Amino acid sequence: MFTVDNIQDIQDMARGAVLLGTGGGGDPYVGELFVAEQIKRGNYPTVVSCDEIADDAFVVSIAGIGAPTVIVEHLVSERSLRELLGRTEKFYGRKIDALISAEIGGANSMFPLALSAISGVPVLDADGIGRAVPQLEMTTFSIYGARATPSLLMDDSGNVVTIDAVSDAMAEELSRVVAGAMGAMAFMSVYPMSGEQTRRVAVQRTLTHTLEIGRCIREARETSGDIFADLVACLGSRDGRTAKILFDGKIADVVHETRDSWHWGMATIQSLDGSDDECTIEIRNEFIVARVNGKTVTVVPDLVTILDRESGEPLTAEMLAYGQRVKVLGYAADPMLRLPDSLKVLGPRCFGVDEDFRPIETL
Amino acid sequence: MFTVDNIQDIQDMARGAVLLGTGGGGDPYVGELFVAEQIKRGNYPTVVSCDEIADDAFVVSIAGIGAPTVIVEHLVSERSLRELLGRTEKFYGRKIDALISAEIGGANSMFPLALSAISGVPVLDADGIGRAVPQLEMTTFSIYGARATPSLLMDDSGNVVTIDAVSDAMAEELSRVVAGAMGAMAFMSVYPMSGEQTRRVAVQRTLTHTLEIGRCIREARETSGDIFADLVACLGSRDGRTAKILFDGKIADVVHETRDSWHWGMATIQSLDGSDDECTIEIRNEFIVARVNGKTVTVVPDLVTILDRESGEPLTAEMLAYGQRVKVLGYAADPMLRLPDSLKVLGPRCFGVDEDFRPIETL
Repeated sequence: MFTVDNIQDIQDMARGAVLLGTGGGGDPYVGELFVAEQIKRGNYPTVVSCDEIADDAFVVSIAGIGAPTVIVEHLVSERSLRELLGRTEKFYGRKIDALISAEIGGANSMFPLALSAISGVPVLDADGIGRAVPQLEMTTFSIYGARATPSLLMDDSGNVVTIDAVSDAMAEELSRVVAGAMGAMAFMSVYPMSGEQTRRVAVQRTLTHTLEIGRCIREARETSGDIFADLVACLGSRDGRTAKILFDGKIADVVHETRDSWHWGMATIQSLDGSDDECTIEIRNEFIVARVNGKTVTVVPDLVTILDRESGEPLTAEMLAYGQRVKVLGYAADPMLRLPDSLKVLGPRCFGVDEDFRPIETL
Repeated sequence: MFTVDNIQDIQDMARGAVLLGTGGGGDPYVGELFVAEQIKRGNYPTVVSCDEIADDAFVVSIAGIGAPTVIVEHLVSERSLRELLGRTEKFYGRKIDALISAEIGGANSMFPLALSAISGVPVLDADGIGRAVPQLEMTTFSIYGARATPSLLMDDSGNVVTIDAVSDAMAEELSRVVAGAMGAMAFMSVYPMSGEQTRRVAVQRTLTHTLEIGRCIREARETSGDIFADLVACLGSRDGRTAKILFDGKIADVVHETRDSWHWGMATIQSLDGSDDECTIEIRNEFIVARVNGKTVTVVPDLVTILDRESGEPLTAEMLAYGQRVKVLGYAADPMLRLPDSLKVLGPRCFGVDEDFRPIETL
């Protein structure tokens, strides 16, 4: 158990969350600002490991849902977060013992911390995917037997919708349209779980991982070290998961398109060394597959991240622009995401990529 | 209090409901079939007047919501209706004493009768508008102080969504998108009210009015009487409300368009007598305004209905087709709809028609 008691830590965590967001998940910036303000006032979020809670503890995910383009500008209201907590406890008919991120990648890393800061309810050092994914039914929570609903959505005006769906895919569909009607963004409490269940279905130690990642990039930057060498070493120290710099270059083209409510796109990166080498990255909300000269080098559920070549700052898909100098990073997913049951839901074909999953270390 | 114990009565009621639906509200046909089947089995819907229930009786509307094109084909499931009743009583935490139509025009006339037949819960001889309107916040329930939410939506798969909205307009928006995600149609329980409140905010005796209207048309048809003369007399006997045949002709053109989720359209009817006389009817889900040679002859909230010229069968907007021989009927709305507070929500401008309301009897 620890408290997040300085602003640098929350900034580091947000930076790490963007890296794990693999281009998607929404920018955690407004959430980071909210938590930083709370830290200034002495309201510190508390983080506990899943081993520290009781089997029958009541755990709920607190998440934002909606368009990333809206989430990035939607300020977090203290009143709304408090109201969400109160309504959620009333709805489930019991006190919440711990909060958890549904996905650690992107904005949803911050909202449980924000609520923890103002309520004192701790956040678990774990989440439902260890990266970002576009749909509720793609979390390890759903894959390994927890249920997204009954869930509760609310907006800043005070509209409240509860959902009890027959499947998490239907929960996703209903939540998405409700968030749309609520102004393209809503806050939700979702995945009610016991402590015992959380230990089984969550990806562990991911909140501390955001801190390690963000801190590593910042410190390497401050000490003029080799940011990317340090980062690869830091990521590699995580259960021996492989991390590699896949490409170094300049963004030559970015195409964005909204199709079936997904953010589809393609980034093309050209080598800086004068060769014809080219890296292409397909976007389906997240960066799904990286190919160098047409050959796959990292594919979902392994992580593809694009970072600024000078500062090492990880970039979201919306931030990509022609001419940016970037490095492309590949990173093995948590082992839980590579299990057969996970790959049925998270494999490349689930994102419209017509190939089998192959681990980054074999590519 | 009476029971609907023969099939002819439910057929008459459905016919009357189409007339009061003024082209919209969805075809009550599948609901009529369901109730007819129940009557065959000896399960009769019970109808009671608002005066027969206690002040503290608990009254709820049972309604279908969604695309009329889907409602007309979506068979009514006995299991789903029972489940809706059970879930609704659990949700509100009390037994329902009476059901009520949210709108008597169209399909929503039938669903409370269907549930009454299988559950024994009586239906009130009243509704929330005395005709059809496209949005929840346009009912007299909403206008005179009842609230649409908390409400409950469910589909045949068992997905359940509850809505607690800050306004009935927002309840409408949320219900609409949820119904969309549920397959373009859902059943809902909405407008929880007390018996005392229902007496104040409902349009009274509208279920018996559907029966009078449908029976009048059928009997005039069977006796080879003058259907339209009889119908005008029948309607006129209702609190002295004016009814008139506005036009007699042939449909020369119908335009349909879906715009902002509304069914926009225009029907043009030419005279059969060889003159250049022409009647145009604007459609915004319902028939909103009838004009003869450009001059308004009936405008919302007064009722405009189109009927088959031979059989007197009222037609929904979807049924209109080139070449049909029709008569156009204008009918004064219930006095409650013409009060100043009603006209703020139900006047022509609320439907995009740039004129003030003028009662049919002055036109």
